Amino acid sequence: MDQEFASSLLEQAVSQFASLPGIGRKTALRLVLHLLKQSEPDVTAFGEAVIRLRREIRYCKVCHNISETDVCPICSNPSRDASTVCVVENVKDVMSIENTHQHHGLYHVLGGLISPMDGIGPQDIEIDSLVKRVEQGDISEVILALSATMEGDTTNFYIFRRLAPYPQVKVTMLARGVSVGNEIEYTDELTLGRSILNRTLFSDTFTHSNS
Amino acid sequence: MDQEFASSLLEQAVSQFASLPGIGRKTALRLVLHLLKQSEPDVTAFGEAVIRLRREIRYCKVCHNISETDVCPICSNPSRDASTVCVVENVKDVMSIENTHQHHGLYHVLGGLISPMDGIGPQDIEIDSLVKRVEQGDISEVILALSATMEGDTTNFYIFRRLAPYPQVKVTMLARGVSVGNEIEYTDELTLGRSILNRTLFSDTFTHSNS
Repeated sequence: MDQEFASSLLEQAVSQFASLPGIGRKTALRLVLHLLKQSEPDVTAFGEAVIRLRREIRYCKVCHNISETDVCPICSNPSRDASTVCVVENVKDVMSIENTHQHHGLYHVLGGLISPMDGIGPQDIEIDSLVKRVEQGDISEVILALSATMEGDTTNFYIFRRLAPYPQVKVTMLARGVSVGNEIEYTDELTLGRSILNRTLFSDTFTHSNS
Repeated sequence: MDQEFASSLLEQAVSQFASLPGIGRKTALRLVLHLLKQSEPDVTAFGEAVIRLRREIRYCKVCHNISETDVCPICSNPSRDASTVCVVENVKDVMSIENTHQHHGLYHVLGGLISPMDGIGPQDIEIDSLVKRVEQGDISEVILALSATMEGDTTNFYIFRRLAPYPQVKVTMLARGVSVGNEIEYTDELTLGRSILNRTLFSDTFTHSNS
């Protein structure tokens, strides 16, 4: 299809969009033709937002979350509980957990999960810096909030072992169980089995949901 | 979700992507986080391709297709049949028809279809310039290759009436019928009815498909 493009400018823009995950050449062409119909200042603003994003964005020196300052607003917020650190895979997970309003501590963004299949080892993600934060002694709980996948479990286990020398630090992980709104009939056996083992007192649940 | 973004740079880039058709804020965030992981030169190239696309692209003065020159390569190609003009809605349709290798004439890109519901009238699309091309007298056939929708039919009919003063010009349209690969059982009645009315000689079809 490439040689059919009447313009190399069009071809370049389509190739760029098609390089994004989940966007094929047909969708890319549709997006590019949409941009062509917009005003020149609007399209220039689009391009500049992309360029500035990568060029000017900074990461928090403490938790590696996206930040415009050396230390992000969460890490530098004195009203947050600095003794509890929630370990997440990426920036999106920080947003998801912030949206629950249930975590009042800090974060640690790993920037990936251990995945031997993809050649990602412990040294490729921010585990050493997590251990260093724990070493400094102010942390009493590390919450592992990683995906319930093979990679998430591998990473959970690796971090758990790396934090073993610090017995004063409680290592917890997200509860696994039946998702809110899911029917028992369609819940997989593994999840169902775990949620029976980890069953909670009805009165506790009732109190929590009202808190 | 807006206020949860740790960076206005991130927020701006996400808003820009979310302004594209078919891309919501979740997908936009995924695309932006993907770009953040790419190298700075790569992301800069992305942004610049978008800016240059809108700033530098030109349209053919004859057929209004995208072009890097005043007259596009198709219009200026002497081996193409300048007496047959295929009228299409947009640039993508030119590519689709070029890919069939069945049209050897020129094109006329309307840049839209008449759609009273969307406030698009005949003066908003390139119909006057089509009539002018026909007026000049070199065109013997106009092929209407517009979508089989209400808007396409309205535009077909309008163009047909505008070209009525030029009886030497044959106005044709794409055949409507059962799509190749479609089962009769699942073909809608209107299409099926039309394809019975416009049935073709089996020997003709056989010859065409081998040509």
